[in-house]
Amino acid sequence: MGVDYGTLSGRAVVVRVRDGHELASAVHEYAHGVIDERLPGTGAQLPPDWALQHPEDWREVLRRAVPAAVAAAGIDPADVIGIATDFTACTVLPTLADGTPLAQTALADRPHAWPKLWKHHAAQAQADRINDVAHARGEKWIGRYGGRISAEWQFAKALQVLEEDPEVYDACARWIEAADWIVWQLTGAESRNACTAGYKGIHQDGGYPGDDYLAALNPRFTDFVRTRLDFPLSPLGSRVGSLSAQAAEWTGLRPGIAVAAGNVDAHVTAAAAQAVENGRLLAIMGTSTCHVVNAPVLAEVPGICGVVNGGIVEGAYGYEAGQSAVGDIFAWVLRQGVPREYHDEAEERGEDLHALLTRKAAAQPVGGHGLVALDWLNGNRSVLVDHHLSGVVAGLTLATRPEDLYRAMLEATAFGTRVIVETLENGGVPVTEFIVAGGLARNELLMQIYADVLRRPVSLAASRQGPALGSAIHAAVAAGAHPDVRTATAAMGRLERDVYVPDPSRADAYDALFAEYRLLHDHFGPDGPLHRLRALRNKALTAG
Amino acid sequence: MGVDYGTLSGRAVVVRVRDGHELASAVHEYAHGVIDERLPGTGAQLPPDWALQHPEDWREVLRRAVPAAVAAAGIDPADVIGIATDFTACTVLPTLADGTPLAQTALADRPHAWPKLWKHHAAQAQADRINDVAHARGEKWIGRYGGRISAEWQFAKALQVLEEDPEVYDACARWIEAADWIVWQLTGAESRNACTAGYKGIHQDGGYPGDDYLAALNPRFTDFVRTRLDFPLSPLGSRVGSLSAQAAEWTGLRPGIAVAAGNVDAHVTAAAAQAVENGRLLAIMGTSTCHVVNAPVLAEVPGICGVVNGGIVEGAYGYEAGQSAVGDIFAWVLRQGVPREYHDEAEERGEDLHALLTRKAAAQPVGGHGLVALDWLNGNRSVLVDHHLSGVVAGLTLATRPEDLYRAMLEATAFGTRVIVETLENGGVPVTEFIVAGGLARNELLMQIYADVLRRPVSLAASRQGPALGSAIHAAVAAGAHPDVRTATAAMGRLERDVYVPDPSRADAYDALFAEYRLLHDHFGPDGPLHRLRALRNKALTAG
Repeated sequence: MGVDYGTLSGRAVVVRVRDGHELASAVHEYAHGVIDERLPGTGAQLPPDWALQHPEDWREVLRRAVPAAVAAAGIDPADVIGIATDFTACTVLPTLADGTPLAQTALADRPHAWPKLWKHHAAQAQADRINDVAHARGEKWIGRYGGRISAEWQFAKALQVLEEDPEVYDACARWIEAADWIVWQLTGAESRNACTAGYKGIHQDGGYPGDDYLAALNPRFTDFVRTRLDFPLSPLGSRVGSLSAQAAEWTGLRPGIAVAAGNVDAHVTAAAAQAVENGRLLAIMGTSTCHVVNAPVLAEVPGICGVVNGGIVEGAYGYEAGQSAVGDIFAWVLRQGVPREYHDEAEERGEDLHALLTRKAAAQPVGGHGLVALDWLNGNRSVLVDHHLSGVVAGLTLATRPEDLYRAMLEATAFGTRVIVETLENGGVPVTEFIVAGGLARNELLMQIYADVLRRPVSLAASRQGPALGSAIHAAVAAGAHPDVRTATAAMGRLERDVYVPDPSRADAYDALFAEYRLLHDHFGPDGPLHRLRALRNKALTAG
Repeated sequence: MGVDYGTLSGRAVVVRVRDGHELASAVHEYAHGVIDERLPGTGAQLPPDWALQHPEDWREVLRRAVPAAVAAAGIDPADVIGIATDFTACTVLPTLADGTPLAQTALADRPHAWPKLWKHHAAQAQADRINDVAHARGEKWIGRYGGRISAEWQFAKALQVLEEDPEVYDACARWIEAADWIVWQLTGAESRNACTAGYKGIHQDGGYPGDDYLAALNPRFTDFVRTRLDFPLSPLGSRVGSLSAQAAEWTGLRPGIAVAAGNVDAHVTAAAAQAVENGRLLAIMGTSTCHVVNAPVLAEVPGICGVVNGGIVEGAYGYEAGQSAVGDIFAWVLRQGVPREYHDEAEERGEDLHALLTRKAAAQPVGGHGLVALDWLNGNRSVLVDHHLSGVVAGLTLATRPEDLYRAMLEATAFGTRVIVETLENGGVPVTEFIVAGGLARNELLMQIYADVLRRPVSLAASRQGPALGSAIHAAVAAGAHPDVRTATAAMGRLERDVYVPDPSRADAYDALFAEYRLLHDHFGPDGPLHRLRALRNKALTAG
């Protein structure tokens, strides 16, 4: 049984241990979704850039999606030998010592008591300090994160809690990834996994940052690691416990079956897409994109989100990079509206608006719209690691149409990916193959653009529920059905190779456009106009 | 009788000589409008950036709008003592020696035989050469045009005809502004006015560029001025002839009444808005904006479209600047579409979409959208004089809404105006008052933004048909009813002073945003990314 916790829903899938065949799956949508406007209960307005979630929504996935998947598979629940989960990350929460979320205590009326979703972007000031102090002190670990710790990660979010609501911080006995918290719910015992500790928690070379460093961030933060974070780490695919009676009741599964270490949705997908071998870069493309790739060597690559020994699979250095918004940008273009005649045309043809704009955009020659855009509408995760950046479009004319902007945004995300791939390769991490998983893998125009922009074939993960399959593979390993993740992946993962191949003349044309993207990237990327615009916006909105 | 020839229609207005009271007006829409896709008759496709008009549309205004205005005024046509016209410029056409447009000869199937509308933008290559050669030779007159002759003007358009269709050029006996051609239709005799000759035709210090210069552009162009252009110039407001029997028949007016020298729609409006006094800058704001201001001194201001002695009124140096798209940009935002719920909301409230977006945009604090835009969606006329530039938007986020972009574009045009005002003042041309005429003067949000961005009160021309009233003022002078244009303007023009005044705190906030605009302007303005994007676009579209 694999269970994938996404941003808006959780998905359970029942997978055959022998060959990875997916018997059935079920989805449960979170009742509270993303909490970014008003706090549940009090209805208090949240500040800009906040994003929270409700822990009960996560438990509800165990109560609903898991039994529904078993029922849909038509199997005897007793035949399930193991369960593994993966989660968005860094999604992190404060709990009591027994794992009770502070959001479910008397502190529920305090926004900082709630789980912070990965895309909570209000801790940039703390992240800036984390980075400045690390560089000033010459902390060795900072190079493992491309020189920048993200505002999305554990330390920045924890420091924000401490500094903005010390009472909540004081009440927080554990600062724990949702990836580990959900495993705690399954086993009844705390565990921490090697993946999130390394990628989101600054765990490197066997330990976390020291007290001196933490004290330099804020004297009250000195004991943060010792008191709230540090716990032995479990390798990915290892069995961290057995399904508790309570969790067995929720899920309908047998108590005592294997529960695997927590994992991250992106990283676990590598197993589903047979992308655990070195050099195979997997891009999990949805609302945002996460890139993971393994290498036999440790390299410190600027702007890469992180490198973690065994962070994706035991025995390799796992590299992670990301783009903060991808599908979200295409949805944004549609949210701006389209001309009325487009609505009429879409209705006439029975298309949705994405299909309509895609069709119109696909008809254009490369460069025909005259636009180049920066895909930073939700900041830049790699290689600039800066959530205060924003999007830019250049080349607009009175003849520019919505499909032009739409296509320019598809291309901008491809250019952003090319920057990441080139940065990896220049930094000593070979990329031999480009594999796509996630919902956007089904967008043919987008995939062809990626092939052309990258001048590489695009392979596709065959499963449409990659993270859940990846989790199921880890569950099979935890249950002892396969000796290790690599072996299990070979048996249970599935990959369609070279589905899209680059067209040389389009690739040439994209080289010229990419050169323009790169110049814009380098002009707008450093401290400069976009930061000042963000500051002016925040000042105006606060004053208003 | 004043007759204003706009881009899409001609308007006739009957004005009382004593006090400028507008008795009645009538409009005639051009049957062919702007010809920018297919040539009438043959249906041949026009290249990108072309814009033509049909001379018969212009005659039709005399046949229809003039008598309709007289009828609507309920006056005896015999009481009309004079007629004056104004025109878009540089709108220019090749004719036979008797004034017959080549478009109405056997050459009608040749695109270059047709009148080129002001916004015909396909002669940039010729304009570049005109500028390069002028600077290389140290031509004194180039400084009078801010150092750059526009691709929209007489010489660039004529050189394009010569180089792309020599047969049409050979058949062209006269290269004449539509402003002068329409007067020829009224009087039966050729005349040329001081305004278009100076602003659009490189007439400075009593003459046109010499044969040597023309030969350096193209040996076959050597005699262009002598053979096709040069003709004694008539001052504005002077009587250049009498209404011919033919024109009297068309218009229903008395033959023999005074016909004034041709004029340009923007410049003639200064008379209607009492903006002929030195230092009063008049912005005529519609689809694009034209700025005119008089000064007692001759200054060479970089990027200003032109300075002409007596170009607006006798006895002063008239300065012209411009923005290639203003209202066109706001319409472009709407053309991209708006969300469906906006349509519903607009219908519910009985608003049009402009009103809806304006209402939503007006509610924002200055800078609250986080955007800054470059208003170059139709190129930049001042102070960069470059039609190959295009628009840029920076600061986009997933939270950006259509009203944000709409407001950012309103502001971008205000910033563009501020660059022009500051350039004039830094160049030695004082601007003591800012006056707006044209359709956009009725947009309250826009006018308040201009007041705040410019830190100046905004005064408004009281007449809603400024050019036609301005022409009527010139007709009154030509008929001898007033001794000169200044006197006539004081009696017949009307101005509402300081209708909008700047708010200090909004002006402060706009100073910060303008600083960002200025940096973007200086980054994207010179040869660089926008030119390369345009070149890539043109290459892609041509190859396609």
